[in-house]
Amino acid sequence: MGSKILECVPNFSEGKDRGVIESIVEPFRRTEGVKMLDYSADKDHNRLVVTLIGEPEGLKSSLLEAMEVAVREIDLNRHRGEHPRMGAVDVIPFIPVRNVSIEEAKYLAEQVASEAAVRFDLPVYMYEESATSPERQNLANIRKGQFEGFFEKINLPEWKPDYGPWEVHRTAGVTAIGARMPLVAFNVNLATENLDIAKAIAGRVRNSGGGLRYCKAIGVDLKERHMVQVSMNMTDYTRTSLYQSFEMIKMEAKRYGVKVAGSELVGILPMQALTDVAAYYLGLEDFSEGQILENRLLWGD
Amino acid sequence: MGSKILECVPNFSEGKDRGVIESIVEPFRRTEGVKMLDYSADKDHNRLVVTLIGEPEGLKSSLLEAMEVAVREIDLNRHRGEHPRMGAVDVIPFIPVRNVSIEEAKYLAEQVASEAAVRFDLPVYMYEESATSPERQNLANIRKGQFEGFFEKINLPEWKPDYGPWEVHRTAGVTAIGARMPLVAFNVNLATENLDIAKAIAGRVRNSGGGLRYCKAIGVDLKERHMVQVSMNMTDYTRTSLYQSFEMIKMEAKRYGVKVAGSELVGILPMQALTDVAAYYLGLEDFSEGQILENRLLWGD
Repeated sequence: MGSKILECVPNFSEGKDRGVIESIVEPFRRTEGVKMLDYSADKDHNRLVVTLIGEPEGLKSSLLEAMEVAVREIDLNRHRGEHPRMGAVDVIPFIPVRNVSIEEAKYLAEQVASEAAVRFDLPVYMYEESATSPERQNLANIRKGQFEGFFEKINLPEWKPDYGPWEVHRTAGVTAIGARMPLVAFNVNLATENLDIAKAIAGRVRNSGGGLRYCKAIGVDLKERHMVQVSMNMTDYTRTSLYQSFEMIKMEAKRYGVKVAGSELVGILPMQALTDVAAYYLGLEDFSEGQILENRLLWGD
Repeated sequence: MGSKILECVPNFSEGKDRGVIESIVEPFRRTEGVKMLDYSADKDHNRLVVTLIGEPEGLKSSLLEAMEVAVREIDLNRHRGEHPRMGAVDVIPFIPVRNVSIEEAKYLAEQVASEAAVRFDLPVYMYEESATSPERQNLANIRKGQFEGFFEKINLPEWKPDYGPWEVHRTAGVTAIGARMPLVAFNVNLATENLDIAKAIAGRVRNSGGGLRYCKAIGVDLKERHMVQVSMNMTDYTRTSLYQSFEMIKMEAKRYGVKVAGSELVGILPMQALTDVAAYYLGLEDFSEGQILENRLLWGD
């Protein structure tokens, strides 16, 4: 099997003070089982975004240490920046990368949330897959009103925190923690200029239209290319594979006598989203991700 | 683009003395740009096999240091083991992994060979893709007669070394160095028990039969599964892709009214051998290997 690996992208509300920034990331540097891929502090946003990869235990312990520094050093009453924020530790998403189910990622999010709430006297909202109500799935919805607005917002019964005191931390505000699957942005181009066809196919292929469970889709006009596109977000590529949406679009396009002209992947995606596609089209039997050289280099399996 | 990365699997003729073994691998542990994935010393074979991944410069400098130790510490006159051998440093293959062409791997092999020959007074034979004659492509052919036999063999004009003195090193023998592509073992199963069909298709799809340039193929009987198989070695997956051989086999199978039942990959393969397949079947435009999360983790691009 190999190690359980998650990605975690904690956001802290400090983008200027190098001393504070370095103290926050220091636990990520030294904790075993955690690799800090990147950290970038933006002065205009006044925000620090850290990209971590690691095993559950190391992530948990280093995050709690970093949160302790952030809660101690950051005072949101004095925080100004372009980016909306509600907490010294604004948000912590956990994203399964390898040998981790969304359920395991949710469990880790709950552990970090419950421990942080007690240790730092911090109200915590669970969001995305960890949300306890539909209004809490979307981070923007939770963060609406920001730090300043939360002193009133928190008193509404529907905004009672999931963990910690029912009261805003005077300097560190509130924090959102949750698990989500990595999104794969996958677009399929159609050799027609008729946007209605792209919209109709998008409606057929997406979950909300009776299509594939982990697929969101819209029709988009590619005016310069004289084509239209079915633009998709694959919300769980381990359960709805890219080849399924691709083949379903081809199938629907036939009704209109339209050809699929090509496709594109936007941004970063996990290798497995593509190796699954290759395994399907080649009809591979007994294939294991451990046979891929890069996996051996990374995870030693 | 990202770093140039090769795999290198040097074989040394010492499988017993822990002190010597540790001194040989010590440069691989400490050299920047080199990662030792594995080293295994076998007492029966009396042989040390090291698996390295790294950038050209680091591989070159650490290999020369390790060779210096092996040439100094190993005396083949006293070496007994199951595995055939001809040198203290028996063989060093260089295998492109990422952003490296076979030509660049050959160049690195030449650099290491020429420098080692001068520094250690060592005869070196270039083999595989680096071979200077057809008889030198196959390592077994070079090694025939082993250390003991080489004192005569080296005098034959056709066995003049490519680098170094025309004379066996009294204790360290001779060394083979060369570049080769990683092999991908790819088998396609046919839903028939007729072995003649698998053999005929193998003959069509392989290079030697007029088929694909970097494909070797034979027909194999899978008696227990009541099927036959086209068993292939893809000798350069960057130039002949797996989907090409797969589609060509499907195409040929049609002539016999036979269906492709599935396929299998045997052993380790580089990710790109599969992402190329996915990119073909999805008709991906502008896809870059740098979009894959695992590549960012490994190579930082």
